[in-house]
Amino acid sequence: MTNLHPVLLSGGSGTRLWPLSREAYPKQFLPLAGEETMLQDTWRRVAPLASAAPIVVANEEHRFLAAEQLRLVGVEHARIVLEPAGRNTAPAIAAAALQALADGGDPLLLVLPSDHVVRDAGGFRAAVQAAIPAAEAGALVTFGIVPSAPETGFGYIQAAAGEGVRDVLRFVEKPDAATAQSYLDAGGYFWNSGMFLFRASRYLAELERFRPDIAAAVRKAFDAATRDGDFIRLDRDAFAASPSDSIDYAVMEKTGDARVLPVDIGWNDVGSWSALWEVSEQDGDGNASHGDVIAVDSRNSYAYARRLVALVGVDDLVVVETDDAVLVARKDRVQQVKDVVARLKSDQRSHAVLHREVHRPWGSYDSIDQDAGFQVKRIKVKPGARLSLQSHKHRAEHWIVVRGTARVTRDNDVFELHANQSTYIPLGAKHRLENPGSEMLELIEVQSGSYLGEDDIVRYEDVYGRS
Amino acid sequence: MTNLHPVLLSGGSGTRLWPLSREAYPKQFLPLAGEETMLQDTWRRVAPLASAAPIVVANEEHRFLAAEQLRLVGVEHARIVLEPAGRNTAPAIAAAALQALADGGDPLLLVLPSDHVVRDAGGFRAAVQAAIPAAEAGALVTFGIVPSAPETGFGYIQAAAGEGVRDVLRFVEKPDAATAQSYLDAGGYFWNSGMFLFRASRYLAELERFRPDIAAAVRKAFDAATRDGDFIRLDRDAFAASPSDSIDYAVMEKTGDARVLPVDIGWNDVGSWSALWEVSEQDGDGNASHGDVIAVDSRNSYAYARRLVALVGVDDLVVVETDDAVLVARKDRVQQVKDVVARLKSDQRSHAVLHREVHRPWGSYDSIDQDAGFQVKRIKVKPGARLSLQSHKHRAEHWIVVRGTARVTRDNDVFELHANQSTYIPLGAKHRLENPGSEMLELIEVQSGSYLGEDDIVRYEDVYGRS
Repeated sequence: MTNLHPVLLSGGSGTRLWPLSREAYPKQFLPLAGEETMLQDTWRRVAPLASAAPIVVANEEHRFLAAEQLRLVGVEHARIVLEPAGRNTAPAIAAAALQALADGGDPLLLVLPSDHVVRDAGGFRAAVQAAIPAAEAGALVTFGIVPSAPETGFGYIQAAAGEGVRDVLRFVEKPDAATAQSYLDAGGYFWNSGMFLFRASRYLAELERFRPDIAAAVRKAFDAATRDGDFIRLDRDAFAASPSDSIDYAVMEKTGDARVLPVDIGWNDVGSWSALWEVSEQDGDGNASHGDVIAVDSRNSYAYARRLVALVGVDDLVVVETDDAVLVARKDRVQQVKDVVARLKSDQRSHAVLHREVHRPWGSYDSIDQDAGFQVKRIKVKPGARLSLQSHKHRAEHWIVVRGTARVTRDNDVFELHANQSTYIPLGAKHRLENPGSEMLELIEVQSGSYLGEDDIVRYEDVYGRS
Repeated sequence: MTNLHPVLLSGGSGTRLWPLSREAYPKQFLPLAGEETMLQDTWRRVAPLASAAPIVVANEEHRFLAAEQLRLVGVEHARIVLEPAGRNTAPAIAAAALQALADGGDPLLLVLPSDHVVRDAGGFRAAVQAAIPAAEAGALVTFGIVPSAPETGFGYIQAAAGEGVRDVLRFVEKPDAATAQSYLDAGGYFWNSGMFLFRASRYLAELERFRPDIAAAVRKAFDAATRDGDFIRLDRDAFAASPSDSIDYAVMEKTGDARVLPVDIGWNDVGSWSALWEVSEQDGDGNASHGDVIAVDSRNSYAYARRLVALVGVDDLVVVETDDAVLVARKDRVQQVKDVVARLKSDQRSHAVLHREVHRPWGSYDSIDQDAGFQVKRIKVKPGARLSLQSHKHRAEHWIVVRGTARVTRDNDVFELHANQSTYIPLGAKHRLENPGSEMLELIEVQSGSYLGEDDIVRYEDVYGRS
């Protein structure tokens, strides 16, 4: 069997699918197109080809999300390379290649964005198999998507005539509509999907040749990386010093060994709400919906509901309803969702970054109600997890367990609480919450105090390295 | 000063403004077009003319809402006539007339729907003053609105030529668009606003003459009414036996004494979301919004937000976001909102009737979170109010006071709790919650149990007559 290591690029911050996707919990970690998250789907798609657990390149603040989601689909020891800052794909893939070489051998890397949909996973695996000989012979193979429409949102790859893996004639930028149509009419043009297959050493050699600055910076960051379980933390300063560039610009457009394999595999980059509508199951009126949606006399619309959403007489609309924000957009204008996110960011509003439910390594908390002087949170603690030993200067807390078992430390006492039991953490008390059980612990916390910000916390001890 | 009693008709159930307006808390009790509710606005508009507190005719289940809202605008002793069932305006006004006569004298009744907007309140009061002589002389005066557009949603009144109060030539039904245009072209046609001025005895005499069946049924219901503070509870069976009819059909179209006074007073019946958009302040793009709304490249739309609502590239849309339901409708299709409500009703879903925050005579409760085995409520108790002495068979309750003072009865104990104090009500315990203070009491209740329905309650004693 070929030595093939999947590299899952998971560094995106996905603002185009706001308000479902947010900086702290972006698109690749959401179950947007099925039961499992897009990262999990991506792994499932290529797991049968993999000689090893995946190498994941992720933003440092998503490390627990990535690790947990992969664990849930049976990945025991992913190698999770953490980027202290985003530097585009060329440096990210270089770090993955260095990690693959460090693990021994010189495997083929199957590089995949972790936030795309591929309906025909079998077809994709067959295409990868077909590309292996060329990659083993030293080619840098990209998978070009057979275009179904004159899309202006993608770059195109012009391929030489022929069958199977073939030479790349040129990479072209996102075209205007007329140019895109001319590509479809001419034939031989394919969408640039950002999926690649090549030997780790070949990529590094070509990067070294064309962008020695990037190669040097990433190598320095990798050599100085700290390792912590499955996490490989690239050196912050060294990685930050790398120029930011895409693999296309840095390597693929320059190398003489670029090859392309055209594939028709039901690919969609889910790069916008309209793209998600396209890949979702639609009813007879062309409506796709998730959750509790009532559509009256409405057509060709996408609705995502946590509570109840009613559509009346609307066409070609996107409605996305979350705990703390609702988006209503015309389907052909969804690219402007980024303008909303930009505005929220410039106003320093948390809606741009956080969901109402905030994920932590130990579980999550969701602020279900708040007003002057108090806040109510629903807190979930994973089996075996423990929050830091902490105290607060400005608030007291009431805890009512509603599911599972809590082990509570309060100053010198340690005791257990079960469902329908409660306790009180006075202001200033040193306390800790743990889940000693094997099911999720859930509790309602009522905070009371003059100041209720997350930053009123003194950490004495933390198993996640945050104290 | 003329003896003039305002009669505020407050029996509507307002489904056309769902999800903000719901059966249990409809439009007239909401602050839709200003700081105060429409009922309060209606009273403020006519208070300077009134010789007495208003007579309010309301649905029995809205009695506490009506009383409380009027109290908040300084009405000490409204006479609140409670209809055990809706029978349209002819019986409702008959009951009000009987109440006015029972109070002594034979006042003029100024009959007003309590859910309309009148921008020029001074102009309206001047019109009422102008109509008083005719009404005192025995006429049944209606106020006809000078039409600003060929509306097909209203009935029209054709008036005789002349100035001021004049004869009615005929009442006409809601016309089609061409007919409505012909009315505007011809002149002398006015919108039927449902506002009237007449002597109590004159209305009753004409009703007796043209619809003796209605007059007899209402008189019987009124004579057998029970009185309870400000509430006049019409006899259920007698009132239910009355035919249902409008004052227009029953009296105004038949009497020889109908007169009309055309008025141009910024009137709007706020009969739909598009009407509310019309009367709301709009920005330069024609957008009207309430709450936290971000509009990007959007026009002529109405948005009501409790949380954050973002509009992107939409025109002529209505978006209404509440705690448990979101409506997105094309502005020219808002009449179909009733189809959504009908569907919710046929599915027996509470969204048709209740808001998430449910109002009770003692205050309100809002179910802020729930899942299998538990529910979290935020409970508000008005100063001096007390819930019933009660017990539950299937749930225990944790109470955490977050504002104000609670007096708690738990079996044989009675004790007080202040902010940041809590207690536990075991399953089966006989308990009561009171607010002995002068500010609102607020508490968080965490219910725990196998069944959490509102109907798991045994009431032993209730100051609101519900045990």
